[in-house]
Amino acid sequence: MKLVNSNNPSDELRVVLAFDSFKGSLGATEACEAAAKALEDRFGSRVRTVLVPMADGGEGSLTLISRKFGLETITADTVDAIGRPIQGHYLVDEKRRTAYIEVAQAAGLPQVSDVPLRPLQASSYGVGLLIVDALRHGAVELNLFLGGSATTDGGAGIITALGGRLLGADGSELSLGGGALEYLDRVETDGILPSAYSARWSFITDVSAPLTGFKGAARQYSPQKGAQSTEVDSLERGLDRLTSVLEDHHEFGNRNLAGIGSAGGMAALPAALFQTAFQRGGMFFAAQLGLPDALQAADLIITGEGSFDEQSLEGKVVGTVAELASQNNRQIPVVVIAGDVSGAPVIHTNGLSAVFSISEGAASLVEMQRHAPSLLSRKVVEVVSLVREARASSSRNER
Amino acid sequence: MKLVNSNNPSDELRVVLAFDSFKGSLGATEACEAAAKALEDRFGSRVRTVLVPMADGGEGSLTLISRKFGLETITADTVDAIGRPIQGHYLVDEKRRTAYIEVAQAAGLPQVSDVPLRPLQASSYGVGLLIVDALRHGAVELNLFLGGSATTDGGAGIITALGGRLLGADGSELSLGGGALEYLDRVETDGILPSAYSARWSFITDVSAPLTGFKGAARQYSPQKGAQSTEVDSLERGLDRLTSVLEDHHEFGNRNLAGIGSAGGMAALPAALFQTAFQRGGMFFAAQLGLPDALQAADLIITGEGSFDEQSLEGKVVGTVAELASQNNRQIPVVVIAGDVSGAPVIHTNGLSAVFSISEGAASLVEMQRHAPSLLSRKVVEVVSLVREARASSSRNER
Repeated sequence: MKLVNSNNPSDELRVVLAFDSFKGSLGATEACEAAAKALEDRFGSRVRTVLVPMADGGEGSLTLISRKFGLETITADTVDAIGRPIQGHYLVDEKRRTAYIEVAQAAGLPQVSDVPLRPLQASSYGVGLLIVDALRHGAVELNLFLGGSATTDGGAGIITALGGRLLGADGSELSLGGGALEYLDRVETDGILPSAYSARWSFITDVSAPLTGFKGAARQYSPQKGAQSTEVDSLERGLDRLTSVLEDHHEFGNRNLAGIGSAGGMAALPAALFQTAFQRGGMFFAAQLGLPDALQAADLIITGEGSFDEQSLEGKVVGTVAELASQNNRQIPVVVIAGDVSGAPVIHTNGLSAVFSISEGAASLVEMQRHAPSLLSRKVVEVVSLVREARASSSRNER
Repeated sequence: MKLVNSNNPSDELRVVLAFDSFKGSLGATEACEAAAKALEDRFGSRVRTVLVPMADGGEGSLTLISRKFGLETITADTVDAIGRPIQGHYLVDEKRRTAYIEVAQAAGLPQVSDVPLRPLQASSYGVGLLIVDALRHGAVELNLFLGGSATTDGGAGIITALGGRLLGADGSELSLGGGALEYLDRVETDGILPSAYSARWSFITDVSAPLTGFKGAARQYSPQKGAQSTEVDSLERGLDRLTSVLEDHHEFGNRNLAGIGSAGGMAALPAALFQTAFQRGGMFFAAQLGLPDALQAADLIITGEGSFDEQSLEGKVVGTVAELASQNNRQIPVVVIAGDVSGAPVIHTNGLSAVFSISEGAASLVEMQRHAPSLLSRKVVEVVSLVREARASSSRNER
């Protein structure tokens, strides 16, 4: 371990800045850079900062990956959730033969919000087209970011685009969309691209929903995608039927796997056929963006996001940072700085040292958002100042 | 110095809680007690608290003195600034033969706001009556809290009540109030109570105004007391004339003494005749309430008030706490927790480690005031948690 010279109260403090975006006001990179600049202005070389702008799969997540690895965006012809031709974008790292695909790019809800929602027909077929394009670019690692989809089709569209066929009892091919799944008899896999089998698939999820049941893809999420009560029932029967077929004839493990219900169960069929893994968004991005390494040499970690509440600790950026910090046996203090803080009483059992709002008093949300960079910067300086003085004071008492 | 066992990260942390009142929501005692209870609930015996509710002479100040020394309030017949009979209240500590008198009790502006203001006639005579009462109770220490008066009479009323006479050139006695002072020729002191000479007078001020000039009692403050332009001129001439007489015939030192312009220059005449001292409110209460002693054994000091800004550092509670802490060579961290924070950039040159608002996000002033006890308590817990972890982490690194 590093030997600190306790005679020198201006010992360098190593601070990792690992902010998520502050939605509506600051991107993750901007937040980290504003904080780093403020610390440089205030403390100069007495504070060393390491910037790890973070994400958990939400808006802006791919931008961080793109910057980190210097990737270019690939544009490919595909279709939206109801089959209309669109251009979809994804990232490929050719050196590492890795693709990063947001399913919402080709099956997103906002893209089809210009017409009445068709929850039974909405399909992941367009996502499959992007995957095919990535495989043709030589990708052997597929990272699929689930979330924000208009679909509840259990990944049927993906398999169809890859060359598979979902058949009914009479041998006819099912139409696209979750509404047809209740008539599924078997999945014909002969036509599937071989490269889909050799690839390693990672599904990055932002929720822990199971496939079926009250917390599942149909019952919990399809109403937001426009499903009325009878349609929810139909979609639930479809996912249930899909599960039975996959359990009986393929290597489908667990319909209650946390996250398999994300994005309308889009990972279900691939999980039964290919080499797949599930990761929570926060932990995936932490690994990709190098956070565990950065923490090795930290004296203080500052993370944060627009709105902190109990859910922040469940797989999102703040919870991931806390979890990684707790695995480090130096027990580095972790401080959260958020626009809005609620649920503070729960934090101390979750590896966080303290949670502060950027607010400096009575203020409206709009005012806070407008001044977010300076408010955040000031709060970071306060926290670092306090930590430095607490450490210095502690050192003095030990002499 | 205390040797801390650095193998034990749960070392007891000694926290001094020295809040001012949070105006509109929390008294100083309530603030300290709410914070102490929250720390006890969260940390148990790992955090030891010492409560020093503070004041600087404003609203509620005497209540703290009364509680600290278990004093009873004395009620005496007196008059208000325009001579109407009222009952005034002050404190006497019979054992220490010490009186505590707020001049606003008998010369206050609010008491005379039911009639048109009479800035030329308003007099400190009623304050003098309370002083006479205190001297008769055996007080040999007189603590007079300046501020909030309706008067600009240089203390003429006080001297009159004590038995002195302010005379014009023709030998007639001047009428009460600052308007007559420009006709002052001499002060006849023969009739003044001997006990006024043997007493030690302390004037506790909340402003640093000189007696005369643009920042003085008449030009800066008399307009708030109802003086029109020509009346301000008359009052200024009166204080100027008073200064000349006192300089020529009595031991009057310095018309620019910081604070001698408080409360309409009420301390001027006493300062020329008696044993007087001036103190800033924050430092006076710190000494009375035992703050310097409490700081000797502190690892962390938390202070605060409703609204923190640059003025907070000038003689008020927060500035006083910072000043006392900086005199302690252990350099104890000082944290401010306030309802509203502004002027943060200046703080780090003033002995404060960090300044936080109790706010947890977008909120109105009314909401913040309503939830002040729980918001304050939570923020205190966050700060102490962070300080404990920063100290523990620092200790681990030094092994």
